[in-house]
Amino acid sequence: MPPTPQQDRSRETRRKLLDAAIATLSEHGAAATTVSAVATRAGMSRGAAQRHFHTRDVLIEETVTEFYSRLTRHLRQAVTDLGVSPGVSPGAATTTRVVELVVDSFSSDPFRAALHVWSAAAGAESGLRELIVSADARYAREVLQLMALALDADLTDPSTRELLRMTVDLARGLGLGAVLIDNADHRDKVVARWATMLDQGLRHNS
Amino acid sequence: MPPTPQQDRSRETRRKLLDAAIATLSEHGAAATTVSAVATRAGMSRGAAQRHFHTRDVLIEETVTEFYSRLTRHLRQAVTDLGVSPGVSPGAATTTRVVELVVDSFSSDPFRAALHVWSAAAGAESGLRELIVSADARYAREVLQLMALALDADLTDPSTRELLRMTVDLARGLGLGAVLIDNADHRDKVVARWATMLDQGLRHNS
Repeated sequence: MPPTPQQDRSRETRRKLLDAAIATLSEHGAAATTVSAVATRAGMSRGAAQRHFHTRDVLIEETVTEFYSRLTRHLRQAVTDLGVSPGVSPGAATTTRVVELVVDSFSSDPFRAALHVWSAAAGAESGLRELIVSADARYAREVLQLMALALDADLTDPSTRELLRMTVDLARGLGLGAVLIDNADHRDKVVARWATMLDQGLRHNS
Repeated sequence: MPPTPQQDRSRETRRKLLDAAIATLSEHGAAATTVSAVATRAGMSRGAAQRHFHTRDVLIEETVTEFYSRLTRHLRQAVTDLGVSPGVSPGAATTTRVVELVVDSFSSDPFRAALHVWSAAAGAESGLRELIVSADARYAREVLQLMALALDADLTDPSTRELLRMTVDLARGLGLGAVLIDNADHRDKVVARWATMLDQGLRHNS
């Protein structure tokens, strides 16, 4: 059965609230991310927001799940758009594009939001820490698999796996650098240089 | 004039409080780092702690300055201990040791504490954000200079500078990975592999 207009509206409201929650978390941190603040940002009443998220804890937890799932969907789509064929080694341009996608993913608002949630989780007795750590680990695994797919790389080869994990490490570091200082110019240079190193390393392994 | 016994005691008290503040920040985040909590951890009364740090803001600010200065002193000493001579190209073992030192620096308690302060600063209207951003940028510059010194590398060469900055990016990413998941085994492998890549890159540049 297709959704009723009411279900559509409810889904739309929920999406708007999650958008507002990600933006608030990313810009102002976890302490500032209350149901009221998010409702205001989404242009609705606190009561309307509470029908979707009963408490602040629920709001933060569902926001974490949501932003990792957005990151995953976005990266999956981007890799699909690269149009790589299985068994065909991609060229250097594809390697650069893949490194760029991974670096962008770890420089995005959801990444910044994740950092704030991690920090807030350290001070609280809650399942939040476990949630963010496991969501992050799952996302890192997903990134590895998508890179392997896009670069026709063999994840069971230890040296290849290590190079791909280093790409994630470097991307995380650049992402963290970006939250502290604006390093866009430096980031572009690193993407280009690391892509060359990665390309050479992967060719050497295969 | 040598310090009086009273000055010595005061300095020692201050050091203990800063130790406790770094540990509390690193483990529980900024919200948990109050003058009372830090005093309790250091085994003294709130009043005694307040003679050194009048408010929580002052405590956090001075802790930020202190942990970056500890990181700097520690790295300077470690580079001095390497005993490199100017004009002499170091071997691959020195490159590995230098990468290890940089990675360790960004996986330490002060780095974790810095992340929490950054997160707390995003939600507050304070000079804290500016303080942490400028302290972090200063430290990153210091790390570059110390690496250049230890590796007899020329920072005015753009390619060399980029390789050294990539080392900092990678170290930051590994440090962040370490706060989320325990990745010590992976970290050791990355240190070894990156040291080889860096060594080759620097030889190629010089």
